[in-house]
Amino acid sequence: MGLIVQKYGGTSVKDVKHIQNVAQRVANSRDRGNDVIVVLSAMAGVTDNLIKLAEEASESPDEREMDTLLATGEQTTIALLSIILNSMGYPAKSLLGFQAGITTNSSFSRARIVNINGQVIKDLLNDGNIVVIAGFQGWDDNRNITTLGRGGSDTSAVAIAASVNADACEIYTDVDGIYTADPNVCDKSRKLKKISYDEMLEMSSLGAKVLQIRSVEFAKKYNVPIHVRSSFNEEEGTMVVNEDADMEQLVVSGVTCNKNETRITLKKVPDQPGISAKIFTPISKAGIVVDMIIQNTRSGGDTDLTFTVQKTDFKKAVEISEKIAKEVNAAEVVTAENIAKVSVTGVGMKSHAGVAATMFTALANENINIRLISTSEIRISCMIEEKYSELAVRVLHSAFGLDKE
Amino acid sequence: MGLIVQKYGGTSVKDVKHIQNVAQRVANSRDRGNDVIVVLSAMAGVTDNLIKLAEEASESPDEREMDTLLATGEQTTIALLSIILNSMGYPAKSLLGFQAGITTNSSFSRARIVNINGQVIKDLLNDGNIVVIAGFQGWDDNRNITTLGRGGSDTSAVAIAASVNADACEIYTDVDGIYTADPNVCDKSRKLKKISYDEMLEMSSLGAKVLQIRSVEFAKKYNVPIHVRSSFNEEEGTMVVNEDADMEQLVVSGVTCNKNETRITLKKVPDQPGISAKIFTPISKAGIVVDMIIQNTRSGGDTDLTFTVQKTDFKKAVEISEKIAKEVNAAEVVTAENIAKVSVTGVGMKSHAGVAATMFTALANENINIRLISTSEIRISCMIEEKYSELAVRVLHSAFGLDKE
Repeated sequence: MGLIVQKYGGTSVKDVKHIQNVAQRVANSRDRGNDVIVVLSAMAGVTDNLIKLAEEASESPDEREMDTLLATGEQTTIALLSIILNSMGYPAKSLLGFQAGITTNSSFSRARIVNINGQVIKDLLNDGNIVVIAGFQGWDDNRNITTLGRGGSDTSAVAIAASVNADACEIYTDVDGIYTADPNVCDKSRKLKKISYDEMLEMSSLGAKVLQIRSVEFAKKYNVPIHVRSSFNEEEGTMVVNEDADMEQLVVSGVTCNKNETRITLKKVPDQPGISAKIFTPISKAGIVVDMIIQNTRSGGDTDLTFTVQKTDFKKAVEISEKIAKEVNAAEVVTAENIAKVSVTGVGMKSHAGVAATMFTALANENINIRLISTSEIRISCMIEEKYSELAVRVLHSAFGLDKE
Repeated sequence: MGLIVQKYGGTSVKDVKHIQNVAQRVANSRDRGNDVIVVLSAMAGVTDNLIKLAEEASESPDEREMDTLLATGEQTTIALLSIILNSMGYPAKSLLGFQAGITTNSSFSRARIVNINGQVIKDLLNDGNIVVIAGFQGWDDNRNITTLGRGGSDTSAVAIAASVNADACEIYTDVDGIYTADPNVCDKSRKLKKISYDEMLEMSSLGAKVLQIRSVEFAKKYNVPIHVRSSFNEEEGTMVVNEDADMEQLVVSGVTCNKNETRITLKKVPDQPGISAKIFTPISKAGIVVDMIIQNTRSGGDTDLTFTVQKTDFKKAVEISEKIAKEVNAAEVVTAENIAKVSVTGVGMKSHAGVAATMFTALANENINIRLISTSEIRISCMIEEKYSELAVRVLHSAFGLDKE
């Protein structure tokens, strides 16, 4: 018995039949004596269709109006779920973002929640209602409708859970939890029972498919335990929680791979103060996000400067780099598009030496060359040739003892 | 130059291409120096599809949730129109019912507007915006979303026009005005330049297809001139306005026909005080609306009591009538399903005798029997056999001089 927030994603509410399935799950939780708040996404595909409609109307749709348009998706699903719950004999009331008192800033299409006045929600719960809230949306101080960006319903759910001090925040999706590696790549991957907020944030390339990263930041900040699980079965999923003693027994919790990167190297850059700023200022001004940066000082007093950017930014980044190379008298620009970043992540890493050595040895044993290395306190990433990425995930998964028995 | 409210119905906004056409019309009006408020319906068919979805979810959908569901239709069209107007270089802002300050009572699915705070609208106009408002919807004092019933966008438009003291309220639809008779029945029917609010209300069977009757009541109350016209051409339509001298020159403005009625007669009812109440109380308790009632006193001290109800209520009304007939010792119940009501309407009727005589003579000339007659100050209706209804409309149209030259 407690106060539970349940969030269901687009594939869980993709038609009336699926919403009826959701209603049954909600009713079961109510029958177990819980107070239940449900947060819904739009039906799978609906948001994409609305975007298409807007693009048919204009090449660059006005952002305020875009948010008003997109907000209809969740409005439809919360009304339908409430209709079904009421007809099953479970009193339910839907709340749009503004009705639930979800106030955001005015950054249309990527608004941030600034406040949730949980009073309306609490009053409806006290009157015996199941409260069904539209995810992904809010309003700003001028009563404009805003949306939180793709995957924003996860953040809505966590923020609502924080505002009403819920006992649990269950995120129902079409996978049944967070895995030690992508099961499509590594058939020995295992579902994790628990993962820390920090690990989840670092495993973004895996995690982003399951949870909006911002929702994890929010959960960490307000210490909201998230339970990621499937809406298609009854199995326990993965708890995303604060770091605890259990977790540290695992040196590495997961192996992830990101194929979306490309590499650019400026060869023989004069080794002068301020040269990095000269190179990265125009790149950043062009809105390009740089992921890894490595600078190798050479014996001759000049350096090779290497960095990685997303595939979509590659062309623009190369153009800018070639212009800068001339300005700073670099020898040439060398690029690689077919690269991938494999990472191992784990809070246990902090207290264990030799993680890097294990990683490098495992890759070397398979003759996989490492082109770049970057690290954080709980993650080590290596840039390798893209064609080795699946193999790399599997050997690292074995090397860190993650394979299921 | 002035302040114009333009309302576009579902067929005028049925897809992005049609909404682009609407945007061009709105822009033209703006270019002529007008301040423009646009009120939109949902895309044609969308509301029906949402109702189907709700019926798939439940046999008797919760009314509050139904309104939240249906309100998405207009939200989509106002966002799309605003996107298009902005991309054409015409600053535009959409307003949902609640954002526009449209407060209604809490009768979900048939809410009545109780107040419109026009200040938000005026502020946006003063900032140079075209204001695009969702028709059909509002909110109540508890921030619940409400809808006004089918055709409610007409009422929204008229109410908004009244609240901001607009110079004109243009209702754009798929017909180009109000006709003296249904052009599908009478090919000599003419478009009226003007019609009074009262005539429009009486011609409901014709008018309801073009204007929600409640919008006419509202327009009459606040003296808002309505211009009914087509969104597919540039022609002047029909002005719905206060009665004026011009109108009285026409004795009859229109001929209408309603085939949706059925007749029930209780024969030889004892002529006692209170007998009518005994009969009509259970009928009304069953939610059946009775249209015409005629009681013929016979020489023997008993009467025949005849009344008409809509086709959908016929079966239930007959069942109740037969039960009552036994209780009050009436001889029998006689019914007719294939009947129609033809009406002539006109404010000029008040000052002209002989309208009834002209009507009866015209029908008699074609051997059309009149079964029932009912009248108001500006309307005469005759119940006839349904098979004669088209013929009756045409002969009355000629008899009252309405045929176009």
